[in-house]
Amino acid sequence: MPRRYLNLTPLPEALAAMRRAFPPSDHAETVPLRLAVGRVTAEPLYAEYSVPEVDIAKFDGYAVKSRDTPGAQDQRPLPLLEYARINTGEMLPPAFDAVVMVEDTWDDGGTPWIRKSAAPWQNVRHAGEDIRAGELVLPKGHRIRPFDLGALATYGITRIAVRSVRVGIIPTGSDLVPLGVAPAPGQTIETNTLMAEAYLTRMGATCHRYGIVPDDPDLIRSVLEAAVAENDLVILSAGSSAGSRDFSRDVVGALGEIIFHGIAVRPGKPVLLASVDSKPVLGMPGYPVAAQTVLREVAGNLLAWWGLPALPGEELDVRLSRRLASDLGFDEFVPVSVGRVDGTCFATPHPRGGGIQMAVVRANGYIHIPAEREGIEAGEEVRVRLTVPSASIPRTLICVGVRDPTIAELGNCLADAGYLLHCCKASTMGAVLALRAKTCHAASVSLAETEAAWNDRVLRYLPGVDLLRVQVARTELGLVSAGDLDTDTLASLRFVNHPKGTAARALLDAWLDREGIDAGSIAGYGHEVKTPAAVAAAVGNGFADAGVCPAATAREAGLRFIPLGYETRDLLVREELAADEGVACLIRSARSPEFGERLRSLARCHADRQAARAG
Amino acid sequence: MPRRYLNLTPLPEALAAMRRAFPPSDHAETVPLRLAVGRVTAEPLYAEYSVPEVDIAKFDGYAVKSRDTPGAQDQRPLPLLEYARINTGEMLPPAFDAVVMVEDTWDDGGTPWIRKSAAPWQNVRHAGEDIRAGELVLPKGHRIRPFDLGALATYGITRIAVRSVRVGIIPTGSDLVPLGVAPAPGQTIETNTLMAEAYLTRMGATCHRYGIVPDDPDLIRSVLEAAVAENDLVILSAGSSAGSRDFSRDVVGALGEIIFHGIAVRPGKPVLLASVDSKPVLGMPGYPVAAQTVLREVAGNLLAWWGLPALPGEELDVRLSRRLASDLGFDEFVPVSVGRVDGTCFATPHPRGGGIQMAVVRANGYIHIPAEREGIEAGEEVRVRLTVPSASIPRTLICVGVRDPTIAELGNCLADAGYLLHCCKASTMGAVLALRAKTCHAASVSLAETEAAWNDRVLRYLPGVDLLRVQVARTELGLVSAGDLDTDTLASLRFVNHPKGTAARALLDAWLDREGIDAGSIAGYGHEVKTPAAVAAAVGNGFADAGVCPAATAREAGLRFIPLGYETRDLLVREELAADEGVACLIRSARSPEFGERLRSLARCHADRQAARAG
Repeated sequence: MPRRYLNLTPLPEALAAMRRAFPPSDHAETVPLRLAVGRVTAEPLYAEYSVPEVDIAKFDGYAVKSRDTPGAQDQRPLPLLEYARINTGEMLPPAFDAVVMVEDTWDDGGTPWIRKSAAPWQNVRHAGEDIRAGELVLPKGHRIRPFDLGALATYGITRIAVRSVRVGIIPTGSDLVPLGVAPAPGQTIETNTLMAEAYLTRMGATCHRYGIVPDDPDLIRSVLEAAVAENDLVILSAGSSAGSRDFSRDVVGALGEIIFHGIAVRPGKPVLLASVDSKPVLGMPGYPVAAQTVLREVAGNLLAWWGLPALPGEELDVRLSRRLASDLGFDEFVPVSVGRVDGTCFATPHPRGGGIQMAVVRANGYIHIPAEREGIEAGEEVRVRLTVPSASIPRTLICVGVRDPTIAELGNCLADAGYLLHCCKASTMGAVLALRAKTCHAASVSLAETEAAWNDRVLRYLPGVDLLRVQVARTELGLVSAGDLDTDTLASLRFVNHPKGTAARALLDAWLDREGIDAGSIAGYGHEVKTPAAVAAAVGNGFADAGVCPAATAREAGLRFIPLGYETRDLLVREELAADEGVACLIRSARSPEFGERLRSLARCHADRQAARAG
Repeated sequence: MPRRYLNLTPLPEALAAMRRAFPPSDHAETVPLRLAVGRVTAEPLYAEYSVPEVDIAKFDGYAVKSRDTPGAQDQRPLPLLEYARINTGEMLPPAFDAVVMVEDTWDDGGTPWIRKSAAPWQNVRHAGEDIRAGELVLPKGHRIRPFDLGALATYGITRIAVRSVRVGIIPTGSDLVPLGVAPAPGQTIETNTLMAEAYLTRMGATCHRYGIVPDDPDLIRSVLEAAVAENDLVILSAGSSAGSRDFSRDVVGALGEIIFHGIAVRPGKPVLLASVDSKPVLGMPGYPVAAQTVLREVAGNLLAWWGLPALPGEELDVRLSRRLASDLGFDEFVPVSVGRVDGTCFATPHPRGGGIQMAVVRANGYIHIPAEREGIEAGEEVRVRLTVPSASIPRTLICVGVRDPTIAELGNCLADAGYLLHCCKASTMGAVLALRAKTCHAASVSLAETEAAWNDRVLRYLPGVDLLRVQVARTELGLVSAGDLDTDTLASLRFVNHPKGTAARALLDAWLDREGIDAGSIAGYGHEVKTPAAVAAAVGNGFADAGVCPAATAREAGLRFIPLGYETRDLLVREELAADEGVACLIRSARSPEFGERLRSLARCHADRQAARAG
């Protein structure tokens, strides 16, 4: 029987157990001042010197004795008998007690004259005005900002004890190749430890990445033992799941005590925490987005508990644009894109798979669905933790709909104009409904180029709404097969189909209709796959005899192709929003010749790349 | 005649002139991926590979042929005839088209059995599900986040072109010593370029700090010429003012064209911008807080214009706790501390001097008073740009009043409990009024230990308010003089006094009253200075014959001392706020034996330091 983590620990319980097992301790290191920005003080800092150390001039002018000056007036100017030329910041010579600004004097034959008496200590910065020697500058636990650096240096502080946690990060997996090596089929570039290092370093940890360790329990054990000796926290990247090559649990269990294995969190379930030599060893899942959750919510929580506060991240309360389901009992984290549409901020979710890193790259924040919620309804208020500055939200444009490289490319044109285009994946139906609910700036739809499609798939859901429509792409689709296709015997062929509502399905249905073939009579008509590549693969592998694909996919896969018609990709915008500066820019960019040129050059690049690979 | 910048340019005009003179250009450099976090993409990034590159298993289990499985049911399990054991992330072998999770099978004599048929492509991640080769990953102008790194690495991107500006920073000044050297009287540690480097580096600039250049026009010129050749922007630190040693303007004017000299901004007025070889040379003032303004508002603005967006900083709309005056025509920046008192967020200003770096260290944000405002009224809403995460505001405690090292030290105790104590300087009167207006959590007051003081200085302004009072310090004050003081001839002595409302003044008045001396008859009774050190210096230098000082100050200055009475420093809190967790913690800490012990050990340290200096 395969091993399973049958008892998932709820996230709050897991974190509490972790905090109990590993109490805060005073991990610290001393760094030179110039490397201290972003670090957290481990001890209070006191001024070494008074600043100013002595009385100094506030302005450029003359140091004078105030008792020599009484009686000077506009009508009765006085010459300065005893004085010293002094510049801003220079020490007041001991014999003097005031400074007259150079602007308040004039020179007459080498002697400065004044028109106003000087008060004692006027224009003088007293010793200790900024700080006195021995006074507190910063308490412990303060994250040092760039401008703190100047003050600390001025006060004679040149080295600082800052909180420090040594984190050892061990990548495991026989299928891994290091960054820079092209992965063979089935291999994966080892990237999670790079991400862990980047994230935890910014929290103030000192990270050491070990070399890739193959799936061999003995090798893993020996690296782990070394890492535990050298660090305060050890992270084992991947191998904490329940597959036949997941050795983390056995190795860690043999060396120490398992605190939990598996927590009720999505993504990030297969996480492992153990205590080895009283130090935490964290088994992190291999799916990148799951690894991110564990870094943020588990490792980050531990570092915060140890005195390294979480990275500043802004929070924003916004409306959820569409219902999000979630399993009761699971804390779930969902990447979202937040944008302000017609005055209201909406969060639109991205796909949730642990392997979909682009969802996190495309998102500007994430929401947390607590375990006691079974989902969140459309329109409900949700708190978003932003991964970008909130100041960027007003310049963020949300496009919901069919994923299209052309529209992603439009993001480049908009970036030139200072706008951020966020594409959130949805079906054409989902896109049209987002347009109806006014939760997006633009919708990206895919339609069969038939007479009925525009009315049936768009207009009927948006009665009375004026729309702007820009075609961004047009693709020829057709029936594909490995050998010659005898359309007369179509009913005897095994089919692989696209889901309802797709342009491919609509074109197939229209063709069947024209040919007078009953869909119900076709074997596999109900077998749906989601991508053209899957259709091509099914037909190529012989699992099916026919399916519908774009001409380019058919060509790449070396399949026969019978044209059925065209699919069109359009960008739709509500006309009432076209006055919005960002939406106007979006429309203008999509219609611009520059964008057309950029698409053509992109297509050429793509063709070149294909040719290079083929060659 | 000294040179002056008679024509101050308004800040918006200065920035517009700067942007006109120095249009954006494509400064970029290529960095390895792991150094790219926080940098801004200079070009769009496209995926090198599809991810997954091939169809892979979503879960641990068995790769199967879906057409072999139809008919499997709970009542009619089937053995898998053809299968391959497969782990999560592994390539689906070409002959198979679905994955059965290991949890959905059981083993019977070496053969796995299933109870459910497999749909084609179930539990398979299709090639390109995350991203397809050639698809856009990030547009240009995106600041790379830690988790972007993993995605970029996964997609085969190992080096990135990021925006880059080379900034040369030249410290000038014969009075400067480098960090690590103890400054002699009148010398200053060179810290502004350190701060500039820290700040601009975090914006994504590549900074080079040159060595300290003395105030010699020829030397400055030669370093400046080299710096202009090697950088995109050159910053001359100090020397842009109008003193006799300020050579920046002459040197820069001889090499290029002055764009502005002096802008209507406070602090930061003496700023200089010139174009040398078509590159910007920025003369930054020497006062640290003025330098910060110029870095943030001028240099930062230029970098943003060139495509390096400003550091994320949160903004918060809060109430101003007390009136802030400001000169019409000047854009002013004021450091403030924001805290939430009884449900309302207030910003309390810190002192504004360009040399008071502690004001910025103590502050958690700043406000901008635009040139067209003559000030902001108490209670008005103001926008604060925070220099800390907004999440820290609920744990921030605002103490307004007399600056006392003891209360600053209390901040250390509170830091242990997770609270941030912000001390904002005000007179005792100011502190009592802040308490009355409920804009602070606590007030720090200084009172003469006389019968009348508590009523006269506190209670009369807070009728009907229940207060908690904790004494944090008690200081003996007395009359000081250089030689013996004959109190009979006091009326013939020259005095130096403290301002009205101070404990020292009150104790003096009470004593004069007791002795039957008329204050009006004392020469210098109206000569007010602000610090005990100034009194001691005036008496020590012979500018005055007598004044009032703490015993310790008199001892350090070697002056005679006639005791007058005690000054007490108290922390006051409204009893109604004592239920607030933070305020309760403040009271508890101030009364704790640990705090008393900490103060005693601090006093010992101070004494040791004094002894070490004397010896």
